[in-house]
Amino acid sequence: MKEKASSYFLQLREQIISAFSELDQPFTRKPWPYKEIGGGEIGLLRGHHFEKAAVNFSKIGGKSFPMDDGQGAFFATGISLITHMRNPHAPTVHMNLRYLETETVAWFGGGYDLTPMGKYYEEDKIHFHQIAKESLDAIDPSLYPKFSEQAKNYFFIPHREKERGVGGIFFDHFPDFSVVQAVGASFLKAILPIIERRIHTPYTDEDRKEQAKFRAHYVEFNLLYDRGTKFGFQSGGNPEAILCSMPPTASW
Amino acid sequence: MKEKASSYFLQLREQIISAFSELDQPFTRKPWPYKEIGGGEIGLLRGHHFEKAAVNFSKIGGKSFPMDDGQGAFFATGISLITHMRNPHAPTVHMNLRYLETETVAWFGGGYDLTPMGKYYEEDKIHFHQIAKESLDAIDPSLYPKFSEQAKNYFFIPHREKERGVGGIFFDHFPDFSVVQAVGASFLKAILPIIERRIHTPYTDEDRKEQAKFRAHYVEFNLLYDRGTKFGFQSGGNPEAILCSMPPTASW
Repeated sequence: MKEKASSYFLQLREQIISAFSELDQPFTRKPWPYKEIGGGEIGLLRGHHFEKAAVNFSKIGGKSFPMDDGQGAFFATGISLITHMRNPHAPTVHMNLRYLETETVAWFGGGYDLTPMGKYYEEDKIHFHQIAKESLDAIDPSLYPKFSEQAKNYFFIPHREKERGVGGIFFDHFPDFSVVQAVGASFLKAILPIIERRIHTPYTDEDRKEQAKFRAHYVEFNLLYDRGTKFGFQSGGNPEAILCSMPPTASW
Repeated sequence: MKEKASSYFLQLREQIISAFSELDQPFTRKPWPYKEIGGGEIGLLRGHHFEKAAVNFSKIGGKSFPMDDGQGAFFATGISLITHMRNPHAPTVHMNLRYLETETVAWFGGGYDLTPMGKYYEEDKIHFHQIAKESLDAIDPSLYPKFSEQAKNYFFIPHREKERGVGGIFFDHFPDFSVVQAVGASFLKAILPIIERRIHTPYTDEDRKEQAKFRAHYVEFNLLYDRGTKFGFQSGGNPEAILCSMPPTASW
């Protein structure tokens, strides 16, 4: 499964990079080696519509799994992406799909979720969830209710007593590759129509200031609570790749 | 000691607020209640030279100490301050002094440290450390070497493999109130001359951009590593007061 999963993540990543580039400009790429086995590649776009987008791939191995849900030697591969749009009407999207193998257990995890940055459109939330739901219902109608509930719980900012954004889907310790493929295949359908209809909306300096305040909440979630960030630092991952998710601006 | 320490922190706080206000404008004040006993007051200045400064006081009590260096019912009082200067030539300063009492043990902790935000002046670092050293040497010449070493170790950003700034002094689990008073009394002498000689230096948009990048590292330290932030959230402290230390702008 190691090779199957990592080739899938790699081709999905290239497909997403192509789609985003078409709306803006090419990504710059920066490979990095992991301290033990393998490494990854940052794909970074600092463009016009995408004020900052990162679509990263990694495939690493090591002697000692650093988290408490596995033990011993491990293998981890995944795609991890984020978009911080310049236009405050366009929400931030985050997506991550990963495969982990340890000596005791192997699993998939990931999902995608949407975060408006000051401007909220009900129709965007509905569309985003609708695509997620359709992609999962095709496999098993019990998945979407579960995964969207898990996103609600996971992407929660306790000290602000609010969800990070408007949710999406999230799963972890899941055995089924076909679900990962369904989620991956649906991602661009979920986000592209939203990006396309928001990036030309006029906005003001005040809107940008408000956006920077919402981005600050995103920073708080990622540094205080996110397991991906924690795994990244605890496994000695590349700090630049881990911090790619940080917004281009934030204000407190 | 509870009342003695908290009155000292309160008067020191008012003295610092006066000194900063004289260079800029008055602070706004916002009291907050703690969920169990007591509370605190945010003192916030969003001014011309002080783009954002917070000089906070708190005095709280509760049934169950949330950290691992004490047990049972606790009392905590302290002053906590930060300045984020608009001028990138002027460094950020952070100061915290606290008294903690638990059922098993009571102690003082705190210190102050300096963080240039892109522009570095050796003379500022020397002056800052010199004042800290003099204030401690008057009590015991073995303290400064120890406390400055502890600051070096504590204010370190592992994933960036660098110190947060140019150090200062830091101590914890310390029994001696006179040391806290010496540190408190020296604070304005340590920082005011630096602020006064930097806030009129001309700067460019590029300098401001660089400042925002350095401020981002400050955010990373505070949210990923700082024990004060951790204690604040784990004890159910006021999120607004805890996050006062966040810079007005940051960029990644």
